[in-house]
Formats: sequence, structure tokens, C-alpha cells
Amino acid sequence: MSIFRVDMSQKTVMSEAEPKGKILGGRALVDYLLIEYGTPTVHPLSQESLFIVAPGLLAGTGAPQSGRLSIGGKSPLTGGIREANVGGAAAHKLSRLGITGIMVEGRCKDWQILKIEAQGAILESAGDIVGLTNYPACDKLRERYGDKVDIILTGPAGEMRLANSTVAVTDPDGRPCRHAARGGLGAVMAAKGLKAIVIDDTGGKVRKPIEGEAFKVAAKAVTDAIKSGPATNALHTLGTVMWVDSDNGRGSLPTNNHHLGSFEKHENINATKFTELVKARGGSFGHGCLPGCIVQCSTVFNDQSGKFLTAALEYETIGMLGSNLGIDDLDAIARMDRKCDELGIDTIELGNTIGILNDAGLFEFGDVKKAESYLEEIEQGTAMGRILGSGVAVTAKAFGIDRVPAVKGLGIPAHAARSSKGWAVTYATSPQGADHTAGGVAVEHLSAEGQGDRSRISQIRMAAFDATGLCLFTFLSAASNLIVPMINALHGMKWSEEDYLEFGKDILRQERDFNLKAGIGPGADRLPDWMMREPLPPTNAVFDVPQEDVDSIFNF
Amino acid sequence: MSIFRVDMSQKTVMSEAEPKGKILGGRALVDYLLIEYGTPTVHPLSQESLFIVAPGLLAGTGAPQSGRLSIGGKSPLTGGIREANVGGAAAHKLSRLGITGIMVEGRCKDWQILKIEAQGAILESAGDIVGLTNYPACDKLRERYGDKVDIILTGPAGEMRLANSTVAVTDPDGRPCRHAARGGLGAVMAAKGLKAIVIDDTGGKVRKPIEGEAFKVAAKAVTDAIKSGPATNALHTLGTVMWVDSDNGRGSLPTNNHHLGSFEKHENINATKFTELVKARGGSFGHGCLPGCIVQCSTVFNDQSGKFLTAALEYETIGMLGSNLGIDDLDAIARMDRKCDELGIDTIELGNTIGILNDAGLFEFGDVKKAESYLEEIEQGTAMGRILGSGVAVTAKAFGIDRVPAVKGLGIPAHAARSSKGWAVTYATSPQGADHTAGGVAVEHLSAEGQGDRSRISQIRMAAFDATGLCLFTFLSAASNLIVPMINALHGMKWSEEDYLEFGKDILRQERDFNLKAGIGPGADRLPDWMMREPLPPTNAVFDVPQEDVDSIFNF
Repeated sequence: MSIFRVDMSQKTVMSEAEPKGKILGGRALVDYLLIEYGTPTVHPLSQESLFIVAPGLLAGTGAPQSGRLSIGGKSPLTGGIREANVGGAAAHKLSRLGITGIMVEGRCKDWQILKIEAQGAILESAGDIVGLTNYPACDKLRERYGDKVDIILTGPAGEMRLANSTVAVTDPDGRPCRHAARGGLGAVMAAKGLKAIVIDDTGGKVRKPIEGEAFKVAAKAVTDAIKSGPATNALHTLGTVMWVDSDNGRGSLPTNNHHLGSFEKHENINATKFTELVKARGGSFGHGCLPGCIVQCSTVFNDQSGKFLTAALEYETIGMLGSNLGIDDLDAIARMDRKCDELGIDTIELGNTIGILNDAGLFEFGDVKKAESYLEEIEQGTAMGRILGSGVAVTAKAFGIDRVPAVKGLGIPAHAARSSKGWAVTYATSPQGADHTAGGVAVEHLSAEGQGDRSRISQIRMAAFDATGLCLFTFLSAASNLIVPMINALHGMKWSEEDYLEFGKDILRQERDFNLKAGIGPGADRLPDWMMREPLPPTNAVFDVPQEDVDSIFNF
Repeated sequence: MSIFRVDMSQKTVMSEAEPKGKILGGRALVDYLLIEYGTPTVHPLSQESLFIVAPGLLAGTGAPQSGRLSIGGKSPLTGGIREANVGGAAAHKLSRLGITGIMVEGRCKDWQILKIEAQGAILESAGDIVGLTNYPACDKLRERYGDKVDIILTGPAGEMRLANSTVAVTDPDGRPCRHAARGGLGAVMAAKGLKAIVIDDTGGKVRKPIEGEAFKVAAKAVTDAIKSGPATNALHTLGTVMWVDSDNGRGSLPTNNHHLGSFEKHENINATKFTELVKARGGSFGHGCLPGCIVQCSTVFNDQSGKFLTAALEYETIGMLGSNLGIDDLDAIARMDRKCDELGIDTIELGNTIGILNDAGLFEFGDVKKAESYLEEIEQGTAMGRILGSGVAVTAKAFGIDRVPAVKGLGIPAHAARSSKGWAVTYATSPQGADHTAGGVAVEHLSAEGQGDRSRISQIRMAAFDATGLCLFTFLSAASNLIVPMINALHGMKWSEEDYLEFGKDILRQERDFNLKAGIGPGADRLPDWMMREPLPPTNAVFDVPQEDVDSIFNF
């Protein structure tokens, strides 16, 4: 297995043996490369900045849903270290081609495509792909490189170097609807001059575990656990939209710019309504975003005329572009989601961004037309579009808004912080910024007690987990005692569960250290102050986890 | 002496005895109040944020040029603690009314004016002052409150809550051309709902030193030192424009967005040309920005028709709106300076901001019309204007520019960092951000050696100095051995020079601690990385002071 080092300035690709004595994949590999080869103080969009692509530890194997791909770099939104992972088939394919990771350095002015195949990798001119939105860009890339290629690309928002831009990855149906969305890594990729990575794995090989039989047994145990997992069936049947009702019910569905935790019109955007619309328009449930998935929570959502619109209308999108904007129209939300996928814009950040415009008198809750017009402004690259495309913190600054729903410059996700207090500790303290996937805490939501401990444990587990390439929803079913045997059998190791958790702790320590060197001190590990004073109806919860508990997160 | 606490939410003004056993003024008082009553994590524009006005330790006395007024708060640009000081007569008058400082808390939605007179202070509706630019606003305030009042006010940029907004203070001729310019404190003032502070010192009394005779002797020693000081005569005769030639000559005049350190056309903006224009248009030299000044470096600059344009066309403005934009037209620079004074915009930050637009293809060096049009955009509050009015870091983010001339979000001033290496250490490490007044180092500009020590000593001295209310240009002539006796005689103390420097160290320690609590770690104490690689012609200097020297600044 080797690491591809792509020098955009020289337009060269070098293959290096992966570092010995290290077990590196996904988030752990992102961190390793950024720390070993990067400089925390450089500008995220400078030529000295790095852009990383890293399949997980279990990528390329038959382990269930092990194909999450980590994308990494220094975040234009947070100014700190950033890993965002995404589905699609790219991770498996890279791994099957013997590639542990890709590190992109330098920059060039003429847009390039990195073409990877069994024979090796080359940079080629991007040509007329540049300027296209993501769906047409992928169509054109397939015309050029064949139907079977997988594509990792930055969209128009990235080309504009907007801080809220994503890296899109094609799903098993070739649609660029899966995004390493958070933290602005699309701009980091674009700043290198790299428009897309195209992967053709013809001739690639499934990775052979060092202990084949043990791996089979371990993988089966995980498969069984997932199949019988508590949320698996619901996710398969409904998708993540199922959380609209539950979050709304417990007062944790961000509504009207985080002024409310429940949405009066939630029944227009919940799973029941969603299902009705999917069925009425010939959409479908039970799609996997990556090969080997046995949860398959993706859904195909068509428009009123039955035409495909999007295949990844997730809970977070519905919360942030729906209830948080007072919008109860699933068709409109799906249209905006598609537009975000086309441009390469994170829906969580955008929902926060448009939401705060209400404070500036520039947005009325429920105004679909206005919300869509703001997406148009981003697409057109107007000054207003550039403000909005730079994320919620910049938008707040431009309009002098002081009630900012963000931590370290990253917008707060759709499990409302004040009424999801354990999760909120993660938002406040994760080196990744306010990220709901960095360590969810789904118990005792309204209690201030014990949330520091819960968040700490969850963040450690997620850090390790994000290195494996396993989907988050595996985590809901399969604890680390089932995961570690797969890693051991694949790599021929003898990790205990403690070793695995120590690995997670190291990841967090490294990330915190990177951020510190980048100028982000522990004082930044705070929810916005207003969340400590302003009650969130209907629970009227405030964030009241004791400061010492929040500060205790890195006591390990 | 007492501190006025103004609660904008309740619209009350309370007078409190100043804290006992503390010697507080200027920057030291700003820090004390922010730390004692403020919360480092709050948003700078929130109602929990504080806005501070603080005359110096020597204000209200007959000490020469002791009337600098400190304005303080949490900076919208840096996110850290901020003190910016300014001339005018306000500091003396406040002090003569027995006011040690003013702390403004809370906020109200209807704009208020704080009227201060011998009988006390009240809040009154600002009425039709709101929306006016600063000169007409001051005219109207004088119509309302009498010709003799001094005025502290936030301009249209502050009203828009733009991060690059100043607090203007009227000069002895009643012109709002003196600004506590850096760090965005105009927006902090405006966010309170406070449009202006109007001071009528009728009935006020010159402060009586505890040891009257000793004070007289000490003040005379300082006066004599200033009068015979090395730069006094040149400053009096030419103003700060005199530095155009010297900085240009040593390759330290920022030119064309910090691409050059010398300006080919510097003779069109230097002291000779400046003097020619001042004389030709009936302007004049030798004005004091505050009563009791014996340097009097201000100049009146009229336009082509002989009409007054501005009385504070300083070196920094000429450098940043002139050479840094490739503009060699002093009339144009003066017009822009006036417009900045009218709107309440910092010229250093704006020059950096427009300069980087060259990287986005939105500005050609030397294009006066375009530069002026951007000021119009700010005035009109367009989206583009809001980007530009938010300072260089936000503008860089919005346009995806990675070559950002700023430290901690504050634009780098007009003594070019790479070829003023001691000064650059101050830019990098000051808790105030890239501030040329936070600790200048004017020797061995191109040497990398010893600059950490020089900057440390200078920052300590300036921290203490900024508490005294003395003008920076006193410092060029009168060392602390002359200043301490004035403080001792006024306050009846027995400070040694060491005590005074310890006082300066405490100020720096407190500010650094505030920033740390606000999330700004020591890793932020860095010049932009590109300044370490990109040579600055004609010296081709890069910033190469050893990192350990930069990191040693707070070793005291």
C-alpha cells in the first residue's frame, strides 16, 4: 500500500510507501499527513496548504459499510484541522488500487484532473469541466473517462474558493449527491487547482486480510449486529428523515433561526409526509450511499413531475434548510438540496447562514423564494453570494449580527444545542468545530449532569471510528468490541479495545495540538454565550452544563 | 474621581467611586474594566459586551500632551481585547469633570446620546443625528448642545455595525478628524445604541496634583525633553508625512498591496509635495490634535479650491491609501481620508482591504476612481460595501484570497513588516493585533537578531505609556525616568521605574489572558506565513526573526 503525493506546482504524482509501524486510515491518516507534512499556520488556501484524501482502515475489504472516504485539510471556516467523511465507492476503489491516501501539495493555475487507475496516476487538463455544476460535470467526466469511474470533485462554490464549499463524491449510481460537506474543503481542493479526481479501479483487487478466517468471522459479527441494530430497519425504511419527529418532539429541531426547538408545521416535513411524496413521485427508499452497505438509508426524491431531484435529502438538510428557515415545503427543501449538491455547498452551514439574515431584516421565515434567490446569488458569485457562501460567521460579521449559531466558525447542526446538552458539549469542544458527527450524545438530552463525561467518551470513540472508514450508522449497532477484531484480522495486529480507544485519544490530542499551533486556544471551546441565557422553547432549555465539565473534555 | 456606569438597557447612568488602591487610566483602565466586569467569550456586538472610555493617568493636568483618550472593548476584528487611543480634548475634559472612565453596558434600540456635564450625565434621544456622517453630525450636535462641547461619536460605518469602524473624537477645532480607529470599536459603541458622547466641561477643574511643586518640576522636565527631542521640530514642521521618504528609502513603505517596499512615485506623496500642496491651497502646519500639545504635528489640508478637507492626513493613511494602492495623488488620498473620517472607517484597515482586491481582479493599482467607488459602496451599505467595511480578513475570505496582510484579523500598518523586523515582531505578538503603536522598534530594521528582545521591551513600555494618556510622540523624547515622577507627584506615589515597567507587564499579561479566554491562543502570535517566504523588494527582506525569539515576547 502506498501514499500518492501530488505536487500541483510541478504537476507530478509520486508514489511513496506508507509509513511503517503505523496503522493509518481515514481521519487518522488526515491528521498524520497534515501534522507530518503541513504547517498549522499557513492559510488554508495557500500553496503551502495540503489537501488530503484518505480511505479508512477497513477500506477495500468486504467489511460491511466500510467505504467512508475521509477528506482533510486546514478548514477555511474554522482555521483548524478538518476531516469530513463521505460515502460513495471511491474509498473502496482507491484501497483496491493499493492507495492508502492521497496528499495534494502546491498549486497550479490551470485546472487539473487527477486520473487514477491500476497503472498509476496522472494529472490532465480539466478543460471544459471547469465552471460546470456538479451533475453535468460528472456526466462530462464519464463521457471522457468511461461510465464506471468514480469521481471526487469540487464544485462551482469551491472554484470560487468560498469557505462553505464541499467536496462531492459520486454515489453508486454516479450521482454527485454525497459530500464531504463541512468545513470548506471544496475550496482547499480548488485552491490547489485540482478540479476532480477520477478513479478507474479496473484491475484493482479486494484487499486480503492477513488473517482471512478471523476477518470473515469478525465481519460477520458486525454484519449481524447491524442487521439486528435498533435503528437499522427504520433507517432503511425511512432514511434519516425519521429524526424530524423525534427531534421535534423533544424540542431539538432548530426552527426559525434557532429561536425554537419545535416546528409548528413539522408534519409537513416529517417522515410520513416524506414517504408520501417519495411514493407519489416514483422515488424509492433503501439505497446505499456506498457499496457494501446493509443499512441503506438513502432515498431517491423526485420532483412533482417525477424527475429525479436528489438522493440524499438528509435529516440535517431538512432541519437546517427547512424548519430553521421556517420552510415546510419538502419540494422546496429538496430543490435547495439539489442546488447545494450542484454548487458544492454544505446545507447545514447554509441553513444557519440564511437563518441569521432574519436578524438583518433580509429574510422572513418561510420565504422559499427568497431562500432560493440567495442560492442563486451564490451561484452567480455576486457580492451577496460571496458573503453567504463564506458561511454563517462571515455573514454575521458583514451584517453586524451578534447572535451567531456557530462554534469556531462552523455552523451548529440540526440537533439543537440547548436541548441536546451532551451533543452541545461536543459542538463546543470538538477540534473539528460544531460537528454533530464528532461525538453524538443521545441520552438525557435536557440534563446538565454527566454530559462532559458522555461527550468525552463519544468523541474518543468517534475519533477512532472515523479512522476505520465505517459508516456512522454502524456505530449505532456495533460497539468497538466488534470492530477491533476486524482491524486486527485485516492488519495482523493484536489491539485490545483499550488500544483502540488510545488510538482515538491520540487523534484528538493531535488535532487539538494542531489547532493550538494554528492559534485556536482552548478558550474557543465554547458554545455561543447567548445559548447560555436564551431559553429554547418549548423546553426552554439553556445550555447550563458546568464550565468545568466542558473544560474536562481533554482530561484523558 | 469616579467611574460612570451607563446601562443602555435601563437608560441609567450611575456614578461609582473609582476602585481603591489602583492606579488606573487609559489602556490600564480599559483592561481593568473589561476583565473585572466583562466576559471574554461574549460577542463584541452583544448586549453583554462592554464599551469603555478612559482618559489617561495624567489627563486633566497640565502635563504636556497628556490628553490621549483610550477607547476600549472586545474587538470585532480581532475577537480579542482592544484599546485604541485618540487625541482631542475629551480626555482632559472628562478628567476635569472628575470622571476616571465610562463603562457602557447593555443596549437599547433607539439611538441615544450621553450628555456629560458638571451636574452629571444623562441619556437623551439622538434624534436626527442618526444617519449623518461625522462632520454634519458634529455640527448638528453643537447646534443642540453649544459650540464648546467635545464630541465622541460613532459614524455611519459604526451604525452599520461594520467591523472596521472607528470612534471619532473632535479635535480642538471641533472637527471629527481624530479617530480611535483600529479594531472596530465604532461598531461596539453603536451596538450599545450609543451614537455620541457630548461633553461640556463648564465648571470643571484642572486636577490638582497631590505634590504640586514636584509635579510642576516633573512636567517641566518632560516639556523640555520634548522641545529638544530629536523628531519634535520635524513633526511640527511637516507632520507625520515626513516618514514617507524615510520608510520609502529603507524599503518599508507598503506599495501595491505589500508587493513592494518602495514606491516609484513616492515623490508625489512625500513631505515636499505635501508641503507644496498645503501651502498652495492655504492649509497650515503645526496644529495640536489635543490641548497642551507642544509637538503639534497635525496639518490642515485643503482641496484644490482651498476648502478645508482634512486635518489629520497622517503617514499611515498616506501609506495605506496611497502607495499601498499604487496611488500617488495626495488630493485623492486626502479625499478618501476625509470620507473615512465622515463614515468612521480606519484608513489602515481600508488600505489593506482595497489592496488585496487586486488579487481578486477587482482593483488595479493606481485606480483612484475605483478606490473611491469602494468607499461609496461602504457608505451605501451595499453587499460589496459590507464586505469591505468588515476589514481585510473578511474581504479575503469572501474572495478566497490567501495572501492576507493581517495578524489576528487586524491589517498590517504602513511600516512594512518584512523590512521593519522588530516592528514586525510587535505586529505578530501584540495582544492588540498588528498595531504599529503597540511597541515600535526603529533600529536595525533589516536584522533578524535581537528583535524579540527589542519588541518585548518596547511593548512593555508602550503598555504602561498607553495608560498615561501621553501622546506617542512624547515617547520619542521623554523616557520613563521623566514620566514616572509626573505620575508619582500627581497621585502621591513612590513608583520606581521598575514599578512602572511592572505595571506595563501586568497590562500585557492581562490582555494576553483575556485573549486566551476569548479563544485566541499563542499560536495566533504569527505574521502571515507568506511574509516568511516572499521577498519584499527592493531590500528583498523576508521575515526571518527566529521563531523562538517571537515566542519569547511574553517571557517576563
